[in-house]
Amino acid sequence: MQAFPPSFQRLVHELSRLPSIGEKSATRLAYFILRQEGDLGAKLASAIQQACSQIRLCETCFFLSESEKCRFCSDPGRDEHLICVVEKPMDIIAFERMGEFRGLYHVLHGLWAPLRGQGPESMKLRELLERVEKGEIEEVILATSSTVEGDATALYIAKLLSERGIVSSRLAQGIPKGGELEYSDEVTLSRALSGRSRIDS
Amino acid sequence: MQAFPPSFQRLVHELSRLPSIGEKSATRLAYFILRQEGDLGAKLASAIQQACSQIRLCETCFFLSESEKCRFCSDPGRDEHLICVVEKPMDIIAFERMGEFRGLYHVLHGLWAPLRGQGPESMKLRELLERVEKGEIEEVILATSSTVEGDATALYIAKLLSERGIVSSRLAQGIPKGGELEYSDEVTLSRALSGRSRIDS
Repeated sequence: MQAFPPSFQRLVHELSRLPSIGEKSATRLAYFILRQEGDLGAKLASAIQQACSQIRLCETCFFLSESEKCRFCSDPGRDEHLICVVEKPMDIIAFERMGEFRGLYHVLHGLWAPLRGQGPESMKLRELLERVEKGEIEEVILATSSTVEGDATALYIAKLLSERGIVSSRLAQGIPKGGELEYSDEVTLSRALSGRSRIDS
Repeated sequence: MQAFPPSFQRLVHELSRLPSIGEKSATRLAYFILRQEGDLGAKLASAIQQACSQIRLCETCFFLSESEKCRFCSDPGRDEHLICVVEKPMDIIAFERMGEFRGLYHVLHGLWAPLRGQGPESMKLRELLERVEKGEIEEVILATSSTVEGDATALYIAKLLSERGIVSSRLAQGIPKGGELEYSDEVTLSRALSGRSRIDS
């Protein structure tokens, strides 16, 4: 690395701070950016600067937005009595791709992960509680991932919500569409069994 | 993706133009850059701009450099009668890590890859020929990778060099250090056998 010019080394260093990009990948990316004769580099740099300066978090739901309210919170056609709580902005994209949910969202930007030193204050939880205390919320769907940390976070929030008299729910767990029974793990199968639904013919 | 603000979508688009980064990874990287509260984003953008504006190719060997001549070509301690030809700047780092080579380099910035539509003009070959015709070169080491394209490129260049009366050589092929014989492929083993050296005891 010492043999590269300083500005190249600096670019490699900054790129390798990105998640899942080590020094080797960063070197390859830096060389690729330079070989594109300035076009990709200039566009990428300006896209980063523009995104960093223009994007903030929606002051209600904390989704990414370029104005005070995001596209969901400023949409009068959305049902404001129903809130879906997710970990990351990307999770909302999955919900919107499905296209059946008409409520509002709340992005935690984190999970309760004591093993990684992340307590409840590392997520937008206080803001969620203030929101449900202010509004007329009928149900909060706790749509964190079905992992240990996602489950723990959901249970923790559900308890705080029930103390405030708010109904909360969790997404159903079971066999994914296209999933083969043979390869299902025991926890998934157990939850699919206990959550089975009657076939009305 | 449509649900994200435009400047976020643009950042994802630019990031996904990088090699081996798809839309999903690009979205994760963009979110990571934004969550670092401006610091990483600002530094990364400025590192890209600085590298793009300051780095050019050495006018002799085409290694990355911030001035007309790179650190190797401007080092009087290097043996200018010996040139090692490589595909990419990163290959030079491997040579320098070894630390035994004291000659100069020549970076092709490409290989002869007809299947990918890259002819001899896609690499810095004309410049290599001009260089050996001008200087007093004793040997050119063709250190392209040991792949089909790397071998073809080396053979092609060797022919052009021999027409000009220049001796060229190729790195030895054989079992890598630590490599187990059991897992060696037949081509490697065949080359290791034909290139065997006598043990003088």
